[in-house]
Amino acid sequence: MSSCVFCAIVDGTAPSRIVYRDDAVIGFLDIRPVTRGHTLVVPRQHSSGLDDLEPHLGGRLFAAGQRLSAAMKSGELSADGVNLVVNDGRAAFQTVFHTHLHVVPRHNGDKLSFAKGLVVRRDPDPDTTAEMLRSALESDPR
Amino acid sequence: MSSCVFCAIVDGTAPSRIVYRDDAVIGFLDIRPVTRGHTLVVPRQHSSGLDDLEPHLGGRLFAAGQRLSAAMKSGELSADGVNLVVNDGRAAFQTVFHTHLHVVPRHNGDKLSFAKGLVVRRDPDPDTTAEMLRSALESDPR
Repeated sequence: MSSCVFCAIVDGTAPSRIVYRDDAVIGFLDIRPVTRGHTLVVPRQHSSGLDDLEPHLGGRLFAAGQRLSAAMKSGELSADGVNLVVNDGRAAFQTVFHTHLHVVPRHNGDKLSFAKGLVVRRDPDPDTTAEMLRSALESDPR
Repeated sequence: MSSCVFCAIVDGTAPSRIVYRDDAVIGFLDIRPVTRGHTLVVPRQHSSGLDDLEPHLGGRLFAAGQRLSAAMKSGELSADGVNLVVNDGRAAFQTVFHTHLHVVPRHNGDKLSFAKGLVVRRDPDPDTTAEMLRSALESDPR
């Protein structure tokens, strides 16, 4: 049994709200969202960080982040912008040691003091948020 | 003549301290570094952001970011961690509208209030910093 919570999410043995999946990566809502719709994209194959991440999987992470970013803007979340962030290493605020890309929808004037901690905001309805993202991804022509 | 400062850096018509180059992207020191060695990776081909970035170039950006990250840790900069960040759109703090990936070396205890603005620190000797990075990249076996 894996002690890595993101491996457990990939396996389906830990609960999550998955919004994106392909053969290399999955994307699910962060349970401590910085903004509504904040998604984590993780490779299915375990690596602890950039040092042991297969380079081609980095490209797949980024590609999924780009698709999610488009869906966050085009869909009901109506994002005005997006931050893509990898925190690699404890010194860089990494807390879960399975490589992951944060995809954070942003709105004009949200005045987010981004990542001084990181600030955590509660999403009152994460199921709806997940559904909004899935549906925007389905409408994405790419 | 391009009015895009990053295109001018790619063309060589604007000055910069280039630390990385391949056929798709270049990396150069940010003139307003968040930490010493803060590097920007940009595609040679212009795009304003994630919306018009060719997906394969996103993968190339990430790959260069991963190599720079390894060099920041293995080389003289002795980073303990790294943040990779794309700020996409004004709402997400993008200020130059040519797609770019921030590669920010981090050290344990640097207590950086990351990206609430972003904090700008002066590098007293950017030429040496650039040389440290170039040399670490040359020693990188990948």
